[in-house]
Amino acid sequence: MAAERLTAQAVAEASARVMWENDVTCRALGVRVEEVGPGRSTLSLTIDAQMANFHGTCHGGYIFLLADSALSYACNSYNRRSVAHVCSITYLQPARLGEQLVARAEERARVGRTAIYDVSVRNESGELIAEFRGQSRTVEGKLLPELGEPE
Amino acid sequence: MAAERLTAQAVAEASARVMWENDVTCRALGVRVEEVGPGRSTLSLTIDAQMANFHGTCHGGYIFLLADSALSYACNSYNRRSVAHVCSITYLQPARLGEQLVARAEERARVGRTAIYDVSVRNESGELIAEFRGQSRTVEGKLLPELGEPE
Amino acid sequence: MAAERLTAQAVAEASARVMWENDVTCRALGVRVEEVGPGRSTLSLTIDAQMANFHGTCHGGYIFLLADSALSYACNSYNRRSVAHVCSITYLQPARLGEQLVARAEERARVGRTAIYDVSVRNESGELIAEFRGQSRTVEGKLLPELGEPE
Amino acid sequence: MAAERLTAQAVAEASARVMWENDVTCRALGVRVEEVGPGRSTLSLTIDAQMANFHGTCHGGYIFLLADSALSYACNSYNRRSVAHVCSITYLQPARLGEQLVARAEERARVGRTAIYDVSVRNESGELIAEFRGQSRTVEGKLLPELGEPE
Repeated sequence: MAAERLTAQAVAEASARVMWENDVTCRALGVRVEEVGPGRSTLSLTIDAQMANFHGTCHGGYIFLLADSALSYACNSYNRRSVAHVCSITYLQPARLGEQLVARAEERARVGRTAIYDVSVRNESGELIAEFRGQSRTVEGKLLPELGEPE
Repeated sequence: MAAERLTAQAVAEASARVMWENDVTCRALGVRVEEVGPGRSTLSLTIDAQMANFHGTCHGGYIFLLADSALSYACNSYNRRSVAHVCSITYLQPARLGEQLVARAEERARVGRTAIYDVSVRNESGELIAEFRGQSRTVEGKLLPELGEPE
Repeated sequence: MAAERLTAQAVAEASARVMWENDVTCRALGVRVEEVGPGRSTLSLTIDAQMANFHGTCHGGYIFLLADSALSYACNSYNRRSVAHVCSITYLQPARLGEQLVARAEERARVGRTAIYDVSVRNESGELIAEFRGQSRTVEGKLLPELGEPE
Repeated sequence: MAAERLTAQAVAEASARVMWENDVTCRALGVRVEEVGPGRSTLSLTIDAQMANFHGTCHGGYIFLLADSALSYACNSYNRRSVAHVCSITYLQPARLGEQLVARAEERARVGRTAIYDVSVRNESGELIAEFRGQSRTVEGKLLPELGEPE
C-alpha cells in the first residue's frame, strides 16, 4: 500500500499539516512552521507590541509558548499522538519587541512512551534567548489514521 | 515619612498597580489580578476560542503564561524589581475552552537574590490543571522608587 | 478484617518499615527516617568527611540523595508501589561537613498515577540548603500485599 | 609565559586533575573520570550492592550523583570555578546492581555567568538510564591560579 511506503520525513510533514490546520493558537499569533522532520521542528514568531511584559520586553509566556509549540510539532512527527507532560525553561536574556524569535526542537531521548526534546530559542542575531526542555508522552490515536507509523 | 510606614500588604498592592499599568500582555489577554500580598498573588484568565491547541483544548502556552504572570506579581511584591529565571510546569489534565483558570502563587523560599514560587493552576471546579515552580532573582531597581522596601 | 481498619497513618508507618528493611543505601549511609505519614516524610543524614566535593563542602549528590529518599518514603506511604520519575533541585547554599541535614517531603498534588512532592532540605540551624521537587508515578504492586489501601 | 599558551584541552585536563585530587566523594565511591575537554566530561561508576534502593535496583541518588559530578567536571573545565545551581533528572529505566554506568556531559549553552549542561547516563549496553540537565554559574576564583583562562 502506498501509505506504508511513506518515508519518516513525509510522515513528519503530513503530521505537521494536520496539526497546523487545527492549531488555532499558532495561527492566531502568527507563528510559522519553518521546518519539520522526524523528531524535530523549527518554528518562528515575531514579537509584537501586544506581547510586552511590564518591563517592556517580550513576556516570558510567549517565549515559552513558542518553544512548547516547537516541542509539539517535533513529538507529533511520528504519527503517534503525543502531549507535553513536563517542561522547563531557562531565560538567558530578554527578547525585544519587534524581533523574530526562532525555536528549534530536537529529540534528545525516547524510551517507551516518554520522549525528551530540547528547544533553543534565538533572536534574529542568533543570540540565545532561552533554553527549554520538554518531556512528552504518547497518548491514544494517530494524526493520520489512514497511515501507518514511519518505517 | 509616610511611605516608610507602609505595611508589606500596602507595598504589594502598590507594586501590583505599577505592574498592571504596564502589563500589556495580561491586559490584552484579559488576565485579572484577583489578589496580591507579600510573596503571593492570585490571577485568573478565561480561556477563549483563540487559545486552542490542535487537540481542541487550551494551549499549554497559555496555562504557563498565566502561571508565569502569577509568579511575576508575587516576586515583585516587595518593591524590588525581579525577573523569572528558571520555570518548570507539569500538566496534570487538559483545560477546556471557555473555562476560567485561576493561578495561585505562593513563596516557597527566599535566599539572597533568589526566590522560589509554587503556582497551582485550577479550573472553575477546583480541579488541578497544572503545577508550576518558578525561580526568580532580583535585579536593579524598584517598582516604586519613592518608597522604601517593606518593613 | 483487621487489616482493612488500619488508619492512613498506620499504613504509612507499616509501608516505611517495609521500605527501610530493604533500603540498603539509606542504611549504609546512616540516613534516619524521623517521621512518616500519608504523603509525607522527614529524613535526616549527617554529612561525614567522605561526602565532600572538591570545594570542601557537602557533595550535591548527597543532598539530592537525601531529598530523593524523602520523596520515596512519602510517595510510597499509601501502600501503592511508586517510583520517582522526574526530579529537580535548586541548591541555595552549601552544606558543611559534620552537619546534620533534614529533608522534609510533603505532597503537593496527586492526579491519577502522578503525584508531586516538595522537599526542603535544611541544616541544623534551620537554614535552607536546597529545595527539591519530585514527580512520582505508581507502578504495579503493593508494599504490604496483605493490606488494602488506606481508607 | 608557557602557561598562557596552554590549549583549551590542556586547561580542561589540568583543571580536572585539581578537582580529582580534592574530590573525596568520587574517589570514595570509585567514580572514574574517563575523559574531559572544554565544556565536556565523561565519568563512570560501577553500581555496587551498597547502592541499592528498596526496589533492589540502583538508588536514584547515585545516578544523580554521577551525572552531577560529570556536570562539575564539565563546567569547571575553563579554569573558572563554577558550581551547580539548578539540576533536573528524568529516570528512564532502572539501573541494575553490578553494572557500570557512564555519564557524558556536554555544554548546551553559556551566557554570562550561567551555563547549561546536558548529561546522559547509560548502562554497559548503551541503554539510556537517565537524562539530566544542570545549570551552573561561575563563582569567584580559579582552579589553577597560576594559569590564565583558555584562549
